[in-house]
Formats: sequence, structure tokens, C-alpha cells
Amino acid sequence: MPQFAHRVAKAQRSFIREILKVTADPSVISFAGGLPNPASFPVPEIAAAAAKVLYEAGPSALQYSTTEGYAPLREWIARRYQEKKGMDVRPEDILITTGSQQALDLVGKILVNAGDTVVMEKPGYLGAIQAFTIFRPSWRSVPLEDDGPDLELLDRALKRAKLFYAVTSFQNPSGLSYSEEKRARVAELLKRHRTFFLEDDPYGELRFKGQALPPVCKQRPELSMLLGTFSKVAAPGFRLGWIVARGSIMERLVIAKQAADLHTGSLDQMIVHRFLADNDFEAHVARISRLYGEQCRAMQDAIARHFPKNVRVTEPEGGMFLWATLPEGLSATELLRRAVERKVAFVPGAAFFVDGTGENTLRLNYSNADAATIEDGIKRLATCLEECMAEAGKAARAGA
Amino acid sequence: MPQFAHRVAKAQRSFIREILKVTADPSVISFAGGLPNPASFPVPEIAAAAAKVLYEAGPSALQYSTTEGYAPLREWIARRYQEKKGMDVRPEDILITTGSQQALDLVGKILVNAGDTVVMEKPGYLGAIQAFTIFRPSWRSVPLEDDGPDLELLDRALKRAKLFYAVTSFQNPSGLSYSEEKRARVAELLKRHRTFFLEDDPYGELRFKGQALPPVCKQRPELSMLLGTFSKVAAPGFRLGWIVARGSIMERLVIAKQAADLHTGSLDQMIVHRFLADNDFEAHVARISRLYGEQCRAMQDAIARHFPKNVRVTEPEGGMFLWATLPEGLSATELLRRAVERKVAFVPGAAFFVDGTGENTLRLNYSNADAATIEDGIKRLATCLEECMAEAGKAARAGA
Repeated sequence: MPQFAHRVAKAQRSFIREILKVTADPSVISFAGGLPNPASFPVPEIAAAAAKVLYEAGPSALQYSTTEGYAPLREWIARRYQEKKGMDVRPEDILITTGSQQALDLVGKILVNAGDTVVMEKPGYLGAIQAFTIFRPSWRSVPLEDDGPDLELLDRALKRAKLFYAVTSFQNPSGLSYSEEKRARVAELLKRHRTFFLEDDPYGELRFKGQALPPVCKQRPELSMLLGTFSKVAAPGFRLGWIVARGSIMERLVIAKQAADLHTGSLDQMIVHRFLADNDFEAHVARISRLYGEQCRAMQDAIARHFPKNVRVTEPEGGMFLWATLPEGLSATELLRRAVERKVAFVPGAAFFVDGTGENTLRLNYSNADAATIEDGIKRLATCLEECMAEAGKAARAGA
Repeated sequence: MPQFAHRVAKAQRSFIREILKVTADPSVISFAGGLPNPASFPVPEIAAAAAKVLYEAGPSALQYSTTEGYAPLREWIARRYQEKKGMDVRPEDILITTGSQQALDLVGKILVNAGDTVVMEKPGYLGAIQAFTIFRPSWRSVPLEDDGPDLELLDRALKRAKLFYAVTSFQNPSGLSYSEEKRARVAELLKRHRTFFLEDDPYGELRFKGQALPPVCKQRPELSMLLGTFSKVAAPGFRLGWIVARGSIMERLVIAKQAADLHTGSLDQMIVHRFLADNDFEAHVARISRLYGEQCRAMQDAIARHFPKNVRVTEPEGGMFLWATLPEGLSATELLRRAVERKVAFVPGAAFFVDGTGENTLRLNYSNADAATIEDGIKRLATCLEECMAEAGKAARAGA
């Protein structure tokens, strides 16, 4: 058989994807996926918006449209950056993408030659690792501390790097956010090294604690790109995201986007725009944030009650994920094997590391389960944890 | 400034795209785009389908879904291949893509290393040229005759080729189709050379003359991939296409698709499936084909009345395009310059050639204009043609 391209010769199916298949069994309590809570989807409002768009715009909602995206939607997004974040974003700086996953693919395409250095956070977002892997980068990763990346190591990593990718608020997978100070320092480092910067901000709206901080991109527009999405604040089934960029970067993104799928669905864009225009979006986002805050608290409380004390867990101020670190030597993959038997699932952390480490870490999603389910699932997981620890203790004693 | 990736360093904005901007002016008669006639869009049926899906499926129509696509839609597509074409296609052989343009991108991604030979038809589909260009192939092209490719040249081109891309029915841009005999011969050649084969069939349903022929892929499933789309038989605004593939090819396509946009819009897939399930699709397709047949005839008649006799025009049996060849030495780009002044547009053929030829050819779209508009536009174009020819004659005499 003739050969596939180098870029997929070693490709593997996504670990998360395979796990999500297990969790299709409804008796499994899943903290694995990154699914928004469907209770937060504005179904009647979307139905009303769809009916209105098809009635008012008719055929033009179903025709081919421009690669850059539906103009009123781009205007809405730009205006929101201006008004909520004081950012100088114009409608022509917005390219609508088929989910922000597509934006990752486009950025990889226009920037990454085989062997180029891409700097990730450690742990880093799996979807970005997958998207960039296709373009065969050389990976560097910089440890995340509670308030953002280790600056000294970031400084070192950015030397000769092509791209730094970061999720600066309520990161996936860690739940951590960059502090105001670290945002400023990261912006300085990026200016010094003249590296392309891709800031991904899917969860920024979902703050349930603390004070909103503007994206790093606010301080450094030149070589930077900022991603946003409607997946977490409207619904992911639309596959509607965007990328903020300018100049020659935007020009190339548009070319790559056109080659990738011509444009993002016209009807989807018009429905979401109608939904935004006809409803109180701030109230909607506040409701989701409140809900996720309650669910996060429920998971933290359950963990405090049931988990062994030597498991460390992050304390996010928003978003959808907690990140747990087991004592050195324990394996979250082994834990998952037991957990699936007890019908509870999560994502082992190793998938989020590009350097082969992270075996003793795991990601827990709290957005897609109610408090009672969370309590039940965490209890099951605690039992598995205790078994793992007992086994490890036995092995250690046997080895001693 | 740091460098972009090699794959977009030389990228140019699409010629068609720039033309479509000119034609946004409603006073321009455009034969340039490849837009389906919006009069053919089933707007009330789509509105009913959307309402039903959101009422019945609710949040699950808005949630993340599987990379492969919505199962009932994949089943519908597979069944149709079985029943209409007698093809052995199973639901698991179908990957739903974000328009068939995305399928082109995915195929390029999984197959084409820089320098790999990709064989195109001459002329060939511009969207495919754009999609594959990103992956920096070495181009070969094989002239299309009235009944399909020149087989001797195809045989030669397939030696050491990675991929052959073909639009076998009512090709874009030429309107030509492969005869039954050439389909069989092409399948043989492909078997002999063990080349990947991508057959694109966006227009196959839109036959208004002659007898339906099955795709070449029916004869040779092993290394072949077949594309389909709802853009021409439902509506392009959904961005819904698919690729038929198997085995390790399908595995890699799924990996690439997941990295590209996770999955195609859930709501779009469910709406189109509902539309297909609740309506008489065959009658709908027959209506569109009849409409385009009338419009094709109107354009052919207008051309017969107004164009100089030394302009050759193809005689399609379906699809959306006519292809015209001007006398050697005339430039369709120059013609377009005049045409735009007289408010009529088309696509100069050179854009469809990967070998720099085709300057005296042009593509005319007839699907998106009624008979009166077609008559008016062809008349204007005839005037421009006569001017071009007179000028060329003057230049020739001056040179003599």
C-alpha cells in the first residue's frame, strides 16, 4: 500500500475520545469529558432564534457566505471586547471558525513547520496538542504554578520558539489562571522574544469567584492571536468559535480557512447572532457561572470528605475542571482501570503532558453532573484511590 | 517578524473569492460563482425540521457529538448508495465533514507530503487545487476529453503518483462527465498503479440529460475515497459533506477530522437528517435538476445566438457549469476586465490549470440566474468578446 503523509504516520486516536466511548454507557458517572451542562443550553431561545432567522432571512441563511464570517456576529464579538474588556478589537479583526478547535488547526497550519518549537503549558490542553501534532513540532513545556507559568523557564523556552500556546484563565486541564502580575510579565517576555502567541480563552466568561482579568493579548496585539468560542456560553453543537488577529497573520488565516472549509455554517452563525441579540446574554452567562460554581464547590467538598489527604487538588475560580495530583509513584492510568470497573471515569493527566511525565495526575470535570452525582462519583473514586494506595504500600513494603 | 510556515509562505488569496466580492454589487450579472439557485432551497421544510429537532431532541441537538457524525444521517447516506447505485457502502464507511471542502483538506493532510505527486484533471477543480496547495505537492495534470481524461496521459501521470483527484460527473469547471467506458478504464489504471484515488461527486444528482452512471469508486474500493455533499441538493449554508472510505484510510481521516474541528455541527446534521426523513428527497432533487436543465439550455441558446462562432462551449448533461474555449491567443482575464465594466462576471479558466496554461478558457455558471438574466448577461459578454477579437485582429494586422 502507498504511504500516508508523515504527519499522520504515527497518529493515534485520541485517548479522550476512546474514554468518551466508555462513558456513553449511562450508568457510568463521567468526570472525563469537557461537556458543558446541557441544563445550561438555552433551547427555547435557540428554537425561537432559528425560526426567526429562517422566516426573516430565508434562503440567504442557507446560501454560501463569506470566509471571514457573518458580519453582524463579528460586530457583536468586537463590541463585546471593547465594552467588557476595553480592548481595541474591530470587526475585521475577527475570523469566525468552526469551533475554536479549527482555529488551532489553522494556526498550526500557517505557523508550524516540522521541527519548529511550540511551547505549551505543563500540563497543556490536549486538543491543542492534537491539532499541532499534525504539523510535527518540537515540543517544549513550561510548568504551571498556581498563578501562571514559571517565568524563568518560560523565558528560557521562548528562545528560538515559533509559538507559545496558553490558556490563561481557568485552564484546561488544571483549572489554574494567570495572575495580573504574571499576565504582565508574560506579555513582556513575549515582546522580548518576538514569538507568536496564541491565547485560548474558552472559559474566561465562566468566573464564579475572584475578579475578572483581561487577556494577555490586551497588552500585546502585534504577534498575538486570541481565541474565543460560543461552545461554553451558548452551545458546542454549533461549532462556533473565532480568532482575533490582524495584518499578515489574519491574511494567512483567511487563506487557510478558505482551503479548510470555505466558511463556517451560515445558519449556525445567524441563529447564534439572533440569540445574542434577542436575549440577555450577561444574565445567561451569570447563570452558567453560578451553576458551575456550585458544582465545583460540591466536588471540592466531596473530595475533602472522601479523598486521602495526600492528594492535592487545585482551587479554580471558574471554568469546568479540577486537577488532582496523586502522591509520587501512583498511576492515574491504573486508577482509571479500577474506576471504570466501579463506573466512574476521569482523564488521566499524562495525556496533557508533551514530555511523557504526569503519570500521577488527573483531570476532573464538574460541569456536567449535579451535586448528588458528584458526591457519588467522588466516593467511588476515593475507594479506588485507597485501593491503589494500599497496593502501592504493599509493593513498597515487599520491595523494602 | 518571525516566519510563517512554508505551506502558506507563498499563499495567495483565491481569485474566485476576490471576484465574488465584485459580484456582491447586485447590478452585476454573475456567472462567476458556483452558487446553487436559492429558489431551490427548501426553506419552509428546513424551518419545520429545525423546529422539530429542537423540540424533540432539545439539548442533545446542541451538545458535542461524535467525530464520525450523526449516526442516522450516516445510515441515510449509506442506504442511498446501496439503493440508488448498488454500492456496498456501510454507515461506518461514512465520515461527515464540514462541507466537502473539509474532506479535501483532510485527504491532503493524511496523504500529501511536500513534493508528492498529485494528479489533477486539466482543467481541475479550483477548491481542490487550493486545499492541496497547502501541502505543497508536485502537480501533474491530465487533459479532459469530452468523455473523460486522456487515458494514455493518465497512465503516464499515475506512475509514482500519490493521489489522483477527479470530478467524474458534470465536472467543475468543465461540465464534462466520464463515459461508462472511461470509468472502467480509469478504475483499471488505478488498480494497476496502486494510487490513492479521490473521486468528488458534488453534482452527480443534478443530471438533466442522459443516463446515470455509478461512481468509479464502485469498481475499486480499496485505495479510493468518494466525496458527497448536501450543498447542491439541500443547501450549502449547512456546510455538510461526507467522505466514503475504509480501513486505515478512514482511521486516519477520523484522527485528522478530530484535530481539525472535533466534529461537524450537531444541529446542522440533525436538521438535514430530519429534512431528508420527512420529505420526498427524490422529487426535490428532480425539481432542482429540471431547473438547472432549463437554465443550461437558456445559456446554450443565448450563446448560440450571440457568441462568435469560433468560441467552443461544452455540452453538459447535468451540474452547474459550461466551459468555453476562446480562439488561441485571446485572454479570458482581459475579457473579464471588459466584462466587469459591463457588469457581467465569470471565472477566467487559468485558475483551474496547475500548469500555467488555459488563458483562453472560461467557466460560466448557469445555476444561479433565470433565463432572462442569462440572456442579458450572455449578450453583454458577447459584446465584450467581439471587442476583444477586434482588438486582437487589429494587433495581428499591425504585427503583420
